[in-house]
Amino acid sequence: MRYFMEPTGVAIIGASQDFKTINGKILKYLLKHKYRGQIYPVNPKYQEIEGLICYSSVGAIPNQVDLALIAVAAARVLGILRDCGAKGIKRAVIFSSGFAETGAEGKGIQNKINKIAQEFQMRLIGPNCLGILNVSAGLIASFSASMEVDSIKRGPVALVSQSGAVGFMLFNLLQEAGVGVNFVITTGNEADVTAGEGLAYVVENPNTKVILTYLEGLRDGESFKRTAERAAVAGKPMIALKVGNSASGQKAAATHTAALTGSGAAYKSYFDKMGIIQAKDSDDVIDLAQAFVPGKLPHGAKVGIVTMSGGVGILLADRSEEWGLQVPALSEALQEEVRKVIPSFGCAQNPIDVTAQSLNQGEEFKKCLKILLASEELDMLIVAITMATGKLAEKIGLDIVEAALGTEKPLVVSWSVGQVAKPGFDVLKEAGVPLYHSPARAAKAMGALYRYGNFQRNWKAPEADAINQIRQGKIQLALKESSQALSEHATKELLELYGLPVTKEYVATSGEEAVAIAEKMGYPVVMKIDSPDILHKTEAGGVAVNISSAKEVEAKFLEIMASGLVYNPQAKINGILMQEQVPPGVEVIIGLQRDPVLGTQIMFGLGGIFVEVLKDVVLKPVPLSRADAQKMLQDIKGAALLNGVRGRPAVDQEALVEILLGVSQLAVEAGDSLLSLDINPVTVLERGKGAKILDGVLVGNTLSTG
Amino acid sequence: MRYFMEPTGVAIIGASQDFKTINGKILKYLLKHKYRGQIYPVNPKYQEIEGLICYSSVGAIPNQVDLALIAVAAARVLGILRDCGAKGIKRAVIFSSGFAETGAEGKGIQNKINKIAQEFQMRLIGPNCLGILNVSAGLIASFSASMEVDSIKRGPVALVSQSGAVGFMLFNLLQEAGVGVNFVITTGNEADVTAGEGLAYVVENPNTKVILTYLEGLRDGESFKRTAERAAVAGKPMIALKVGNSASGQKAAATHTAALTGSGAAYKSYFDKMGIIQAKDSDDVIDLAQAFVPGKLPHGAKVGIVTMSGGVGILLADRSEEWGLQVPALSEALQEEVRKVIPSFGCAQNPIDVTAQSLNQGEEFKKCLKILLASEELDMLIVAITMATGKLAEKIGLDIVEAALGTEKPLVVSWSVGQVAKPGFDVLKEAGVPLYHSPARAAKAMGALYRYGNFQRNWKAPEADAINQIRQGKIQLALKESSQALSEHATKELLELYGLPVTKEYVATSGEEAVAIAEKMGYPVVMKIDSPDILHKTEAGGVAVNISSAKEVEAKFLEIMASGLVYNPQAKINGILMQEQVPPGVEVIIGLQRDPVLGTQIMFGLGGIFVEVLKDVVLKPVPLSRADAQKMLQDIKGAALLNGVRGRPAVDQEALVEILLGVSQLAVEAGDSLLSLDINPVTVLERGKGAKILDGVLVGNTLSTG
Repeated sequence: MRYFMEPTGVAIIGASQDFKTINGKILKYLLKHKYRGQIYPVNPKYQEIEGLICYSSVGAIPNQVDLALIAVAAARVLGILRDCGAKGIKRAVIFSSGFAETGAEGKGIQNKINKIAQEFQMRLIGPNCLGILNVSAGLIASFSASMEVDSIKRGPVALVSQSGAVGFMLFNLLQEAGVGVNFVITTGNEADVTAGEGLAYVVENPNTKVILTYLEGLRDGESFKRTAERAAVAGKPMIALKVGNSASGQKAAATHTAALTGSGAAYKSYFDKMGIIQAKDSDDVIDLAQAFVPGKLPHGAKVGIVTMSGGVGILLADRSEEWGLQVPALSEALQEEVRKVIPSFGCAQNPIDVTAQSLNQGEEFKKCLKILLASEELDMLIVAITMATGKLAEKIGLDIVEAALGTEKPLVVSWSVGQVAKPGFDVLKEAGVPLYHSPARAAKAMGALYRYGNFQRNWKAPEADAINQIRQGKIQLALKESSQALSEHATKELLELYGLPVTKEYVATSGEEAVAIAEKMGYPVVMKIDSPDILHKTEAGGVAVNISSAKEVEAKFLEIMASGLVYNPQAKINGILMQEQVPPGVEVIIGLQRDPVLGTQIMFGLGGIFVEVLKDVVLKPVPLSRADAQKMLQDIKGAALLNGVRGRPAVDQEALVEILLGVSQLAVEAGDSLLSLDINPVTVLERGKGAKILDGVLVGNTLSTG
Repeated sequence: MRYFMEPTGVAIIGASQDFKTINGKILKYLLKHKYRGQIYPVNPKYQEIEGLICYSSVGAIPNQVDLALIAVAAARVLGILRDCGAKGIKRAVIFSSGFAETGAEGKGIQNKINKIAQEFQMRLIGPNCLGILNVSAGLIASFSASMEVDSIKRGPVALVSQSGAVGFMLFNLLQEAGVGVNFVITTGNEADVTAGEGLAYVVENPNTKVILTYLEGLRDGESFKRTAERAAVAGKPMIALKVGNSASGQKAAATHTAALTGSGAAYKSYFDKMGIIQAKDSDDVIDLAQAFVPGKLPHGAKVGIVTMSGGVGILLADRSEEWGLQVPALSEALQEEVRKVIPSFGCAQNPIDVTAQSLNQGEEFKKCLKILLASEELDMLIVAITMATGKLAEKIGLDIVEAALGTEKPLVVSWSVGQVAKPGFDVLKEAGVPLYHSPARAAKAMGALYRYGNFQRNWKAPEADAINQIRQGKIQLALKESSQALSEHATKELLELYGLPVTKEYVATSGEEAVAIAEKMGYPVVMKIDSPDILHKTEAGGVAVNISSAKEVEAKFLEIMASGLVYNPQAKINGILMQEQVPPGVEVIIGLQRDPVLGTQIMFGLGGIFVEVLKDVVLKPVPLSRADAQKMLQDIKGAALLNGVRGRPAVDQEALVEILLGVSQLAVEAGDSLLSLDINPVTVLERGKGAKILDGVLVGNTLSTG
């Protein structure tokens, strides 16, 4: 990516001296924003453009060229790319449309592009993109009208977008909001370079402090995941606008876990785990970027609200609490301090009403802000201004800026009024104080800072236990060898390798053997048909519970075998599973689901009616830490059922945590060979009495790819 | 309210010729915006101001004055009000602060104001408000800086706010967005006139088409409810920004129903029922006002999305679906039509990508919009523009305006770019085409139009059955006479008056009588202690189930009586309730909760663990229509349990609907004498087998007011 983003020489193919054309604009903006490297216009029509030598062909350029910018009609791209290759250019940005996005024919041309790139070992961005920016290097490789400005505001934001239009729309909105940007990378059709690679580049760059990304679907999970980890380690917040339904997980949509969690859930769970903030709108992206640019995070949840109107204060308190913030009552001592600098008809309780009058008066408003920011009773401050115009607006802005610059606590402004207050807005933007034109947006931004602060304090990369290679060999072999879902018995044998508490069970191939096993295990027992060809055992008449005597065992043996053969005459029947009968408890389900992009995720939920009716499940990427596993138990809506409710005892949560951790380790060791696992149900007994896995199905990845 | 809003003569007390003072501004703005009536400045310091005679006192004004505007220091308000009364002025707006909002002392002065008003039969708006506007009459009774503009944009919006600052903040933002306003009423401390009265006035005025309101808490439920009904009948949408936790329902917070629904729930359920759109932010208010002003509602859910960028199209589709809209695939025929007017690399499938190129070219973009708007396949259109500047932006704006004005379908614009596109924004604002600067906001606005369209098509004022006066007399008497919660038996006797299926039961006062009753009812039976002093019967050892013989009945009779006396030696015990035992089914709960402002609401939910763990309940104001009752059953999260799940049969939903309707009628007839009702549980059997009320507690309103 460095040759793309920090090239020493750039060729513009088809460069034009008409600055109204696309190719003219690319040249114009490179000049205007003072690109630091060499520019080589290429066009046989001109000798020179704007004092630069214009070359008749790429081959005619005497020097080494790091990057070619190609914005010609799709039909001409192939030839030009070949010329660039022959010249030894190793990087090209292709702006042109008319490739895979238009259908099968365009896809064919795009494949040809890829072939040429492979032949010459070139790397490509695009086609169908709007280019790239590296503002500090003056590399403005874009023809977006946003470049018309006299100077681009530089700053710590890096933006990677799979859509050119959305990328430069966000860039424009960021600049309008006064947010400085250093990198923009739009990847378009991603014939070669992916958004993941773009992200992996920007995260490592010291000019990047805040990362924004627009994603439709990742082609490249590994570089994205690497970026997310690097960002978490470096404390660089990532804000993602992810659109469209996740295509991932479709593959396995037939399994229980996938059907319960649905598309998009894998992204959400991955984002949550990695502290990536999910934006729902372009507004969100801009609002959150503003909030994170100052680099100040709250150390707790306590927000002070300063207003000139009681009404806006209540509105801000309502919305702040919805984001998990607290609006604490202030101590009498702090209120007393505040009262000294606000009018008698103001309000020194949080939300603090300083009144419109105090904004007018000399130092008092500023003093009030400083008193509140200095207090240990508050972790952050929202300042809400309503009507103020002209000079007064400017003074208010300056007061707020002074307070904001003098504190390490986050301060954001909600200023809900039109352009009459522009002098105030300008002062805040110039100083980089986050400014929102509505209370809810200010509260949302503060909520995001608070959550990210929590994430940063608590996050550490979860590590799986060391890989047990013998175990790993066994599970991968079993998953790869099986052309279908593993039987209950085979699944349980593998679960046992991970120390998971499966029911004691033995396969009986005759009535006599069945009785012998039952007598040894002790009554009552459960009997289940054991056949890889019969997945729905109950439906096939293949399950009997509460079997309490040798006589019953014998009778049931024959009955179940007969039912199985009636249900599926072709079924290969291994025999009858003789299982210990577990006493009643709370039923839960645990599953694994491999997302082809984001990797395997683990699901946990309440079983039975809760899962059938309410789909009350949570999802987390593996590996799990112990804290992750504990949190999963509390994150389901029906968590009270595990904690004890209505006089029922709490269940053995420790036993459940151990199962989740074991399943997580299994997922790590199984790796790509696993498609899914459904454990349904696990019966959890009361605290200290453990949990038992009653049934399970492992499915290997060969099943659906094969 | 007419004398407030349409006065023929207005006195400004303390009028000043210094237009920088508050009283000067009030005069200035009345003059500037051409108030049509007479203006009487009152100030002994001046002979005349701006050519108007200035009077030394209110009494010196020779003519009749409809309205006094008072913006003097709080201490002077009392005297001035008395002068106004003596002069025969019947209406006053008091802007001054320093009354109830400042604490007990201010509250005292405010009470004195009220006394003077009563003495002279005056009505007051305020104090602590920012005045009122009736733009078409030129009545600008406010000193807000928003009035500095050359002319106020008049339009169909009426705004009633309990906060002056919020009211004029919203006014300013509306004007900035190009939304015309006719009425603004800010009620401040509501010493007299309430927001409800303001709303009742504006809803009837033909200049009002869209109603906005900011509410902290209603003092006056009746006029608010009347307004909501009138608005629903007249098809005037109401948008409410309700802040703060509802104080209502606190009174009865100890009861089950209140604890489950929580504060704020009563407002939400009332708003939902009446089609009132709940805004969460000032942005929402402005966005929704813009959407509703054109007066066009979609006839269905099908939204067409026209973009110049695939990415924005996906984002809009995601957000639209979240609001319940559908993004349908277009027919081949319609796609073919679209293809004729977009470039070959565009996309004729919904979301339709017309490409940036087609916006440039003559008539094609406009034609595309018209084709889509003319098609029966779409009910509404979102047009999403990203980058476009100057002249091109203006052309795009004009194209959209022409399409929007030529259709009865709603069309909104999402245009996410900064001020470079201002010429386009201005064209849209001028024409009143709803304009949003982010995709999610455009989708939200369209979603609100769709929901309100549904509401308008389906709404009719629900009517209770005719009041049965004998029954009404009985229930009111029972509720008023009781100084505590009614016993289970007394409650059930009243429920039976409404045809509700309570368990058959008789009180036995001796073991012998108990046996006789049981033999007559048939075994098994349930036995329960019957005492108004023992509410928690199970806890008191007062319940026995599954009693199957005369011998058991005799033994249990003694046991339960003894337990009851041990539990509460002072308890008055009426005897033992002998009840039929209902076979197992699905347990649900039904409750009533009277909100002192909004009236009685009915609650429905699943019983047992569902309610304990998940608080899965819904709330609706009474009276219920049959459709309301049916909808309640489907609105709980666990509705699948009623519909049949996992091989269980569907329950008798008709029987449940009948119970809900009966309880609703009871609420209507009980009126204010009722505080709450908890029916817990109702056992519902499978379809055709009915439902039975197993237990219930009615509580009269005297209990907590007494």
